Amino acid sequence: MVQNKIVLGIDFGSTTVRILSMELKTGKVLNAIEQAYELGENGVFLSSSDNLLARQDAADYVGSMRKALEKSKIENAAQGIQMSAVSGIGIDATGSTPLPVTKDVIPLSSVDKFSKNLNAYAWMWKDHTSHSEADYITKTSAEKRPHYLDKIGGAYSSEWFWAKILHCKNVDKEVFDAAYTWLELSDYIPAVLAGITDADQVKRNVCAAGHKGLYNDTWNGFPDREFIEALDPDLLRVLNTLPKTVFSIEHNSGTLSKQWADDFGMPEGTPIVMGILDAHAGAVGSGIKEGSLVKIIGTSTCDLVLGNLHSGNSNIEGVASVATESVLPNYYGIEAGQSAVGDTLDWYITNVLKNSKSHSELTEEAQKLKVGSSGLIALDWNNGNRCILSDAMLSGLLVGQSLQTKDFEIYRALIEGTAFGARTIIEDMERQGVVINEIVNCGGITHKNPLFMQIYADIINKPMKIAAIDETVALGAALMGAHAAYMDEGKKVSYNSLQERSCEVLDKVYYPNPENVKTYTKLYTLYKKLHDAFGVKGTQIEMYPIMKDLIRIKGN
Amino acid sequence: MVQNKIVLGIDFGSTTVRILSMELKTGKVLNAIEQAYELGENGVFLSSSDNLLARQDAADYVGSMRKALEKSKIENAAQGIQMSAVSGIGIDATGSTPLPVTKDVIPLSSVDKFSKNLNAYAWMWKDHTSHSEADYITKTSAEKRPHYLDKIGGAYSSEWFWAKILHCKNVDKEVFDAAYTWLELSDYIPAVLAGITDADQVKRNVCAAGHKGLYNDTWNGFPDREFIEALDPDLLRVLNTLPKTVFSIEHNSGTLSKQWADDFGMPEGTPIVMGILDAHAGAVGSGIKEGSLVKIIGTSTCDLVLGNLHSGNSNIEGVASVATESVLPNYYGIEAGQSAVGDTLDWYITNVLKNSKSHSELTEEAQKLKVGSSGLIALDWNNGNRCILSDAMLSGLLVGQSLQTKDFEIYRALIEGTAFGARTIIEDMERQGVVINEIVNCGGITHKNPLFMQIYADIINKPMKIAAIDETVALGAALMGAHAAYMDEGKKVSYNSLQERSCEVLDKVYYPNPENVKTYTKLYTLYKKLHDAFGVKGTQIEMYPIMKDLIRIKGN
Repeated sequence: MVQNKIVLGIDFGSTTVRILSMELKTGKVLNAIEQAYELGENGVFLSSSDNLLARQDAADYVGSMRKALEKSKIENAAQGIQMSAVSGIGIDATGSTPLPVTKDVIPLSSVDKFSKNLNAYAWMWKDHTSHSEADYITKTSAEKRPHYLDKIGGAYSSEWFWAKILHCKNVDKEVFDAAYTWLELSDYIPAVLAGITDADQVKRNVCAAGHKGLYNDTWNGFPDREFIEALDPDLLRVLNTLPKTVFSIEHNSGTLSKQWADDFGMPEGTPIVMGILDAHAGAVGSGIKEGSLVKIIGTSTCDLVLGNLHSGNSNIEGVASVATESVLPNYYGIEAGQSAVGDTLDWYITNVLKNSKSHSELTEEAQKLKVGSSGLIALDWNNGNRCILSDAMLSGLLVGQSLQTKDFEIYRALIEGTAFGARTIIEDMERQGVVINEIVNCGGITHKNPLFMQIYADIINKPMKIAAIDETVALGAALMGAHAAYMDEGKKVSYNSLQERSCEVLDKVYYPNPENVKTYTKLYTLYKKLHDAFGVKGTQIEMYPIMKDLIRIKGN
Repeated sequence: MVQNKIVLGIDFGSTTVRILSMELKTGKVLNAIEQAYELGENGVFLSSSDNLLARQDAADYVGSMRKALEKSKIENAAQGIQMSAVSGIGIDATGSTPLPVTKDVIPLSSVDKFSKNLNAYAWMWKDHTSHSEADYITKTSAEKRPHYLDKIGGAYSSEWFWAKILHCKNVDKEVFDAAYTWLELSDYIPAVLAGITDADQVKRNVCAAGHKGLYNDTWNGFPDREFIEALDPDLLRVLNTLPKTVFSIEHNSGTLSKQWADDFGMPEGTPIVMGILDAHAGAVGSGIKEGSLVKIIGTSTCDLVLGNLHSGNSNIEGVASVATESVLPNYYGIEAGQSAVGDTLDWYITNVLKNSKSHSELTEEAQKLKVGSSGLIALDWNNGNRCILSDAMLSGLLVGQSLQTKDFEIYRALIEGTAFGARTIIEDMERQGVVINEIVNCGGITHKNPLFMQIYADIINKPMKIAAIDETVALGAALMGAHAAYMDEGKKVSYNSLQERSCEVLDKVYYPNPENVKTYTKLYTLYKKLHDAFGVKGTQIEMYPIMKDLIRIKGN
């Protein structure tokens, strides 16, 4: 019996690995399974003395992927499908999440000597310990390579590759010296599946390299030796291990090793696509096209827009970064985002309310509030500000509390704060000529929380579409698997055609309510004052009217 | 059998009436009982549409006083004392808490037609509905009687007599017209006990009149006709009902009526002292003397200092008001305060945390925190700012939240915010030459919460003494009763001598911890920036360093 071929999308998120199985011929999603990481706190190792630190254990990634593949195998078998039908594998992962490895591609965290040393672990995207190094890289770029900054919104981030490696060198020279090189998680996993045991043979993906590693064609790849030496001569050793060229998702990173093939009954040699960052996979899986803004809303939020390679501007301020073909071929990938969205709401419920109420209870109560009636405004900076300020050394702010302020009013203000933050990003991109014809949202919260989506529509003042499937990120990875499977068959297919088969938006679109838009426009003015006053160096604005205005708006 | 004489101190607080019985000869406290008000929410009528409103029903005051006297009678009987031994009664009440009454001294709330109309009720001290009228009175004073402002810290408050009456006229002319006059609660209760049924016969106390009603000897009493007419000609009718002279607690307001005497077995004709505001009674009961700052810390905080009538300055900015002999004879009473202290902590637990933790649980956790380690700062303005800004149109602010911020860190930041607010008041008074040699604190929280007191010592950087008795306010009223009883016997005693017998401080004094003082001094600088930026019109300060500084202090 000849089975219909299937492809796998394997998605390494912040706390789980997910696998989506898709039928190749039709683009139909067959099933999606999930496996939580098992080590640390929800998969993350934290430090009680430094809340900027967030690390993960490479062994946890691989162990969880094994369990996930086992689940996929069972799930597919239940649908009468054998893993021998797998004909392409796409992989996405969080990032920048670099991990130090030996020349043999062994993570240092798996080396006995370093097994308890968090600096030898994977440095998770949301690890902000490197903020000083990030500032230093920004400053050095401004002096020596100002054109670098044009592609990264004006500032290098503490979340990124070079800042993290430099911080490791500064705080733990032993780990730094023991690492042959550092791999992004989105390059490490494909290498593991392909059984690559020589770090020099690991291909690097353009998505992580371009957005996080200062790789750009206009300066012929990664930063030049002189610049890296100026940062720190010790970094030259890392630079030497980086390839001249990196690859987009039109290319394969390798093929499935005998070991992994045998372990799960998959065909040896199955093509594995180049990795991609999870948000970018989400944009692919949300059907991103020219003119779409895809918002991947989760613990943090990632905004992705395509810029035309031929006519678009790739020097955009205030975004996270712009990288060539980091999402789809023939386009710049313009990435922006917010460092805490779902995380902020979770923080409020877990750390402040101690789970005395749930998201749905608070949402139900907050839903009944008239816009502006709480008198509150929040800055959405509990985890710093990624865009448009690119500053990890910021924090949350809530203003307008009275003795009558209710728990659910604060909850709503926190949601509104993230929506105001989202608006600053969109306004700033549009100001620079980026065209946004539609906004497609994806991520669990977009399906679960209608209040959240309506607030976004009202504050951003644009209709909010929602990707139909929950698993847009894994779907994007599966589309990549399909692309590789067709290539393997000698067929050239476009990503657009694959998206058209598989990517849908919900019938329910959230439209702005004109009355709400009016009040939120006033509140946004106040948000912007706070934003600029606390977030932009040298700004002096009179804060005195803010509390008065909030009380007035509340009274209306 | 001849019994030892006793005196009663009757204290009308925000939510309860308390009665303290004291032996006249020794000044020994015999017992103290408490009776909660029974109407509204904890005795207060609120409005769901206007959270500035807070009213109380006069019938509730009188009904609760009856129940309280019954309890006192039982309590004293248990100690072998009959109510016939009562030889003096002192009364204090919250204020400015004016209530509209008929010519027969019937509260309008007891007139059928108005029984459901909250404007006919007592306008509780913390009612802030009159903020526009307060601004208007301030503005009019600045134009026409700038010397008025010298005695009230530069601004008339929305909590005070004239603002409330004018607001009533503006929003409910019918109630305004039906009122013959308005009595402070501290004048109404003595009149009730004395059975006075002609409003023109009700004596008014200098404490409420001086601090809240713009009464001052330097302009020969209440404001002049021309000024009141400029405010609103309709107010002239109220002014006409006010006496030329008001009285301090060296004077009696009347004697106990036959009705009240018979109902509780007390002697008819027992002297009733002039009323006083509750905080001022608390200062008397805390042993206030020249050079003491007495802080009465409760839902709000009242700070009282004495200024020498002969050598002291009575024109002080930033305080609530200065009134001649409003606390003790021969001294100015200088009153300052904060509009929400205990209220803010209660709000956080009740409205935000939904009682998921108690004060003592949060205190225990907050106690373990190193100073500055939360990275948080709060402005203590959830109920506006009484001093030094005198602005009801302010609100709370919390800055510095991260995704790791804990519920008890916020609780501590709220306490610290009130202590920073307390420091602004003290600094501002000292700047103007007010001498503060000791700080004596009283109020439930001072006995119950050592963390709170240590934070105050560390932030204010002065030792914190605590009045030994819980019931300093009722004790002060009882000392007034004793003063009257001795006068009745023809003996002239000084308040100081009465205080020396009855007022003690605890052995436990909270001293500043130098290490904490150092960090809090840095944090206070940040508090002051926020204070001035959001609270002082026209201020433009760079806010940008604040979040950075908080993160730096947290990291130390």
